[in-house]
Amino acid sequence: MKENEKDLYYLQGLSIPETPAPGQEPKPWQKTETIGKRVPRVDAYERVSGAAVYPSDIVLPEMIYGAILRCPHPNALVKKLDISAAIEMPGVLAVVSGSDPEARLEWNYSKEIKTALFEPHCRFEGEPVAAVAAETPYQAWDALRAVNVQYEVLPFVADERDALKKNAPSVHAGGNLLKTEKYERGNVEKGFIDADVVLEENYRTQCELHTPLELHGCVAQWNGDRLTLWESTQGVYAVQEKVAEVLGMPLSKVRVIGRYMGGGFGSKLQAGKYTIIAALLAKKAARPVKLFLTREETYLAVGNRPPNDMRLKAGVKKDGTLTALDFCCTGTGGAYPSGGTSLVDWLIRDLYKCPNVRTECTDVYIHAGPARPFRAPGHPQAAWALEQMMDALAKAIHMDPVELRLKNIPDFSQAKEGNPPYTTTGLRQCLEEGARAFGWEEARKKSAPSSGAGHIKRGVGMASCLWFVGGGWPPSTVILKLFSDGSMNLNMGASDIGTGTKTVMALVAAEELGIRPEMIEIEHADTGTTQYATPSGGSKTVPTEAPTVRAAAISIKQQLLEMAAKDLQEEVVALSFKDGNVYSTKEPSKKIRIADISGLKKRGVIVGVGYRGPNPENKSINPFAAQFCEVEVNTKTGEVKILRFLGTNDSGRVMDRLTYDSQVIGGITMGIGLAMTEYRVLDRNQTGKMLNRNWHDYKLPTAMDVPDDIVSLPIELVDTQANTTGAKGLGEPVTIPTAPAIANAVYHATGIRITETPISPGKLIRLLAESRKEG
Amino acid sequence: MKENEKDLYYLQGLSIPETPAPGQEPKPWQKTETIGKRVPRVDAYERVSGAAVYPSDIVLPEMIYGAILRCPHPNALVKKLDISAAIEMPGVLAVVSGSDPEARLEWNYSKEIKTALFEPHCRFEGEPVAAVAAETPYQAWDALRAVNVQYEVLPFVADERDALKKNAPSVHAGGNLLKTEKYERGNVEKGFIDADVVLEENYRTQCELHTPLELHGCVAQWNGDRLTLWESTQGVYAVQEKVAEVLGMPLSKVRVIGRYMGGGFGSKLQAGKYTIIAALLAKKAARPVKLFLTREETYLAVGNRPPNDMRLKAGVKKDGTLTALDFCCTGTGGAYPSGGTSLVDWLIRDLYKCPNVRTECTDVYIHAGPARPFRAPGHPQAAWALEQMMDALAKAIHMDPVELRLKNIPDFSQAKEGNPPYTTTGLRQCLEEGARAFGWEEARKKSAPSSGAGHIKRGVGMASCLWFVGGGWPPSTVILKLFSDGSMNLNMGASDIGTGTKTVMALVAAEELGIRPEMIEIEHADTGTTQYATPSGGSKTVPTEAPTVRAAAISIKQQLLEMAAKDLQEEVVALSFKDGNVYSTKEPSKKIRIADISGLKKRGVIVGVGYRGPNPENKSINPFAAQFCEVEVNTKTGEVKILRFLGTNDSGRVMDRLTYDSQVIGGITMGIGLAMTEYRVLDRNQTGKMLNRNWHDYKLPTAMDVPDDIVSLPIELVDTQANTTGAKGLGEPVTIPTAPAIANAVYHATGIRITETPISPGKLIRLLAESRKEG
Repeated sequence: MKENEKDLYYLQGLSIPETPAPGQEPKPWQKTETIGKRVPRVDAYERVSGAAVYPSDIVLPEMIYGAILRCPHPNALVKKLDISAAIEMPGVLAVVSGSDPEARLEWNYSKEIKTALFEPHCRFEGEPVAAVAAETPYQAWDALRAVNVQYEVLPFVADERDALKKNAPSVHAGGNLLKTEKYERGNVEKGFIDADVVLEENYRTQCELHTPLELHGCVAQWNGDRLTLWESTQGVYAVQEKVAEVLGMPLSKVRVIGRYMGGGFGSKLQAGKYTIIAALLAKKAARPVKLFLTREETYLAVGNRPPNDMRLKAGVKKDGTLTALDFCCTGTGGAYPSGGTSLVDWLIRDLYKCPNVRTECTDVYIHAGPARPFRAPGHPQAAWALEQMMDALAKAIHMDPVELRLKNIPDFSQAKEGNPPYTTTGLRQCLEEGARAFGWEEARKKSAPSSGAGHIKRGVGMASCLWFVGGGWPPSTVILKLFSDGSMNLNMGASDIGTGTKTVMALVAAEELGIRPEMIEIEHADTGTTQYATPSGGSKTVPTEAPTVRAAAISIKQQLLEMAAKDLQEEVVALSFKDGNVYSTKEPSKKIRIADISGLKKRGVIVGVGYRGPNPENKSINPFAAQFCEVEVNTKTGEVKILRFLGTNDSGRVMDRLTYDSQVIGGITMGIGLAMTEYRVLDRNQTGKMLNRNWHDYKLPTAMDVPDDIVSLPIELVDTQANTTGAKGLGEPVTIPTAPAIANAVYHATGIRITETPISPGKLIRLLAESRKEG
Repeated sequence: MKENEKDLYYLQGLSIPETPAPGQEPKPWQKTETIGKRVPRVDAYERVSGAAVYPSDIVLPEMIYGAILRCPHPNALVKKLDISAAIEMPGVLAVVSGSDPEARLEWNYSKEIKTALFEPHCRFEGEPVAAVAAETPYQAWDALRAVNVQYEVLPFVADERDALKKNAPSVHAGGNLLKTEKYERGNVEKGFIDADVVLEENYRTQCELHTPLELHGCVAQWNGDRLTLWESTQGVYAVQEKVAEVLGMPLSKVRVIGRYMGGGFGSKLQAGKYTIIAALLAKKAARPVKLFLTREETYLAVGNRPPNDMRLKAGVKKDGTLTALDFCCTGTGGAYPSGGTSLVDWLIRDLYKCPNVRTECTDVYIHAGPARPFRAPGHPQAAWALEQMMDALAKAIHMDPVELRLKNIPDFSQAKEGNPPYTTTGLRQCLEEGARAFGWEEARKKSAPSSGAGHIKRGVGMASCLWFVGGGWPPSTVILKLFSDGSMNLNMGASDIGTGTKTVMALVAAEELGIRPEMIEIEHADTGTTQYATPSGGSKTVPTEAPTVRAAAISIKQQLLEMAAKDLQEEVVALSFKDGNVYSTKEPSKKIRIADISGLKKRGVIVGVGYRGPNPENKSINPFAAQFCEVEVNTKTGEVKILRFLGTNDSGRVMDRLTYDSQVIGGITMGIGLAMTEYRVLDRNQTGKMLNRNWHDYKLPTAMDVPDDIVSLPIELVDTQANTTGAKGLGEPVTIPTAPAIANAVYHATGIRITETPISPGKLIRLLAESRKEG
């Protein structure tokens, strides 16, 4: 095939096309049949009927149950551990602990500090000290109580603001400072001199806990020297790698399966200690072991969005030009190096055009569970500071907050090396079209605090963002098998973490080959049987996997068209696909069913392999977003009612509109949690223990807390430079601006600026009272 | 990469090389590290420990058990069928029958005759008429007795020799003649005139029953509109295709898994009615259904080697030149067109050089279960006739039987169109080296019947053969994933029917990449997750899949060497693999572990895809074999004791010597069954029923019937023209010459020629008595 013919495969027929220029009719090859429509999930039946088997549903013959004994102190030494009574408990088949030679394994939360699987120095409440496996979960939990542990309880530090104080107990030898990272461009001092207005404010976001609906855990089964794990994970290959490393096994002997999984927002990007413990128990008992954590254990040990203490100083000219940003942040990843300040300054560095920027982030240790990547690591924290500051600056220079942002839109990345231009940036459209669709100006006027005299005040607020990555990247491999009846099997390694990955990938293949998505069955997320993929996270799954699927589909297409050309006695370049047929574009009645193509019948199956190609060089691929909301504040009770939300996103092409909108609604819901209710409460003075380790005390937003009126408005700029599908990431930008948008709306309603999450009624009522006193 | 560099990848290092010319030292690239050695099965642990999960071991949550009610008459009409009592039986959850609209499905044993899944006209004993599913197998079997069926019993014909007689009941409208196939080359009449000796004899082989250790059956589970089947099968894709066709489903919705399977010799090449019935029961009960046949059902319904009635007339010159062969055969595939005479004349047409050949094969219907391909379809039957005839001809012209065969070795296929030359033929070496290793001449002399006067007579006999295919063919796809630690995953669709396919494929990949076979994990035989392959049968699995695996390994190799070249700063062509390292052939100390190659670490996994290439045009690829045996006949009891056997095979390269030898031993064992004990007994006069439908009455050879002394002697002519591994098929030629070799040995010992299988003591004693009378 000649090179120019190859191009034709991409352009003809139902290849995923560029969108038409604005105001122009789409050309035939610019129409999509499936992509961009509202298509229900391909696995909707399994999900709603209960037929979907999640790792926590797995039942294997002879399977027994594991449970982990965890240190109840934030800082303690295991002085003595006696399992002799536990092993005699009813139903108990295996006990492992640090005194067990086979369980003396290294486990590293990071490269910096080496630690043991059962670490004798427990540095946070919830560190595993032993584990048992028994015939029933109840027997396992009972047996845990029979493990006799003597602890030497040590003093603790439970707040990052205390970590560097003199006399604070050291989490590790050498003090509690993990690292300080600095960034600077331009001349910040000069920037402040050039400013007409300079504001400075302290902000704080509280520690938020990972709360996937399905708990963390796995089922472990040995076959000789081969280990199979059914794990609730975002990335089967990442789990495989960690397990093989810790157990000293070849990767090929560790098979990780994670077909369905009940939610993951960063804490399931890797294996947990529980994964290794399940494998050890299964080996010892010579039985498959199911080990799922309780919610309490999940809250103690599997990760959180770190708390961040921030100070931001900003300078702006009267015309809205930002002149300087100076940012300082302290954060903590708990007892181990786990990203206490990861990416917290990225938005400061990169969201708005600003020549003079300085940031300083200090990561410290405390005696608490480790942080983990949490949907858009660092970004919601920075947005909480930056976007409230933008609101305040706009007020100070008497400019509309949307207008101020529009004044400062960059068209290249200022923070990335070489200042690469964005492949596309729809930030302007997000702001303009979002404001228009939301009715920003009218709502802003109508709900101005002066407008009403009663105790119910209305306010509107907004915020915007980018996400520091979002273009996806190699490696990834996908294999499509086209069966002789035209139905298809799609094989990929990526997990569908509930975001509709399977559905989007089916649509891509369906679009390319003109078949119905329901004719495509998907095998995924299994290191044994499916292709390689990196974990699903970082808003990269669609832009990584979709072009890979498309490449595989194009390979099928090329093979099929060459076969069909023989049957139809037509040139390859004159052929296209529709409704399971190949037809001649010159003479549409000349067609053949895919299933009737003689070459396909003869071959049985056609295999198409797709590899993820590289991204364009020296370009920055980023999704952008803006959110607008309206709130009602009861100034007597401090209650905030969120009335409506509009989320507008530039994430390139919309693949499945239904899934797209669900992401927007989900992201806003999660942002409402950060803004309004969610935070980890540590008893920082008395015991260092977590006080709200359950769903009663740790307040997640429920349906009652989320407005019915959430509008998703896609800004569909097909990003033809980013990849062959034009899609960028969506999962994270949808949650970044939510909390500051609410805070800005509350400010608009009340004149009260809440700088620390959550915006609780108690806090608000206190601040309202103080402002009345001051007033 | 340039074309000549590509070639280097094939030649360098541990690429599977040609063998050295005889008498020459192997060159470095001609040595293999793994291939050809005695390597135990990669799944030996699972097989011997019981950890291997066969389809009949599958237990699913909520699984129930199916059972089939079968017609007890060889020819009967179902007049009335009442399931009302059955459905009320304890534990019963579903009943299906021909009166059930959802079970009114078409089922065709072949294209010629359409029939129903529950056919109201039962044409053989064992036709399904209804089926039930219940909580336990016992409840299911009990419930079958509660199905009330009224049959109109019709007259039957149970012997193919009676089928064309006047007044024989017709199996189908239009009489019992299915077809007559004729073949002719040269001038047979003239050939007989040219001959010095012309002999004519009638031969008969009895019907032999398929007896895989694991019974036929499956477990069926529905998830919405998706069906998963765990089936004991030789070909998951073949089962998928049949099930999708019968149930009218897209192929992508039918997933067939057959990882382990307990033996298949042709009867498991496709789905059975039981597969469809299990799926119907599972749908109706909304529960997974396990349906495995009993041995009795297996014997009645799943297939057999058809009985063949043969007449062979042969002419030979005194110098041993064959001048003419005239062959006539009647056979039956039972009640449906299922190959009653398939390939029965192939050896006559093609084994020996003969200018004048005529064959006529007549396939007829009788009221009995269908035939199925049975290890080397047709060939053992023809060998029974031809190889005894060769023995008789040799005696008639006073020539050694080995010598006679050596005189008539062709170097091209006489029966295939265009007379293509053989890629390699080791028939001469099989005969010569086999005779030498067996000590043919000495044994022949020593054991001549005249040598002993007692009632124990010794004799030696031999026979040879080819197999009409054996080179493998496309399509096939295999995918290898090399993990970042140098371990690997091999993904292929082919079933390992117990013959060591997995092991051989691991060796191929291990050899090519210089890693240990145990570092390779294999996923196979799953239409959902593994690549496309045709069923394992026809002695084509190794020559089809091994080159495919090699192509995938070479793809990995190419990618790895390019990466390693960067790390080592060495040219690609100077690099090779050994012991998990890439090293410079120029400077062997310059090396890097595969796991340390920076490109591999970065990519995570390297994917290599292999496709089976086409075979060479206008060539015939065939394996050849000869077998030699020594027997002891007790002329008082008619008992034959087989003392020793030697099987010599030209199947190209020996891949795993252990597996190779096992095939030889297994093939000879099966041939002993055909020769000595196995045959289906139908009550042809009274009831038409099968009289020996169990392991007590149907006599399989046991360890007591098989000599300890079986020698396997490979003739290792690496077939470089056939494919890139040089291997040809082995599974079938190993069983073709066994029965006539024994018959010839018995003749040598006693002067008695037994022309009908089995060589039973009763038959032999009777013939000995007759010969004494005549003598």
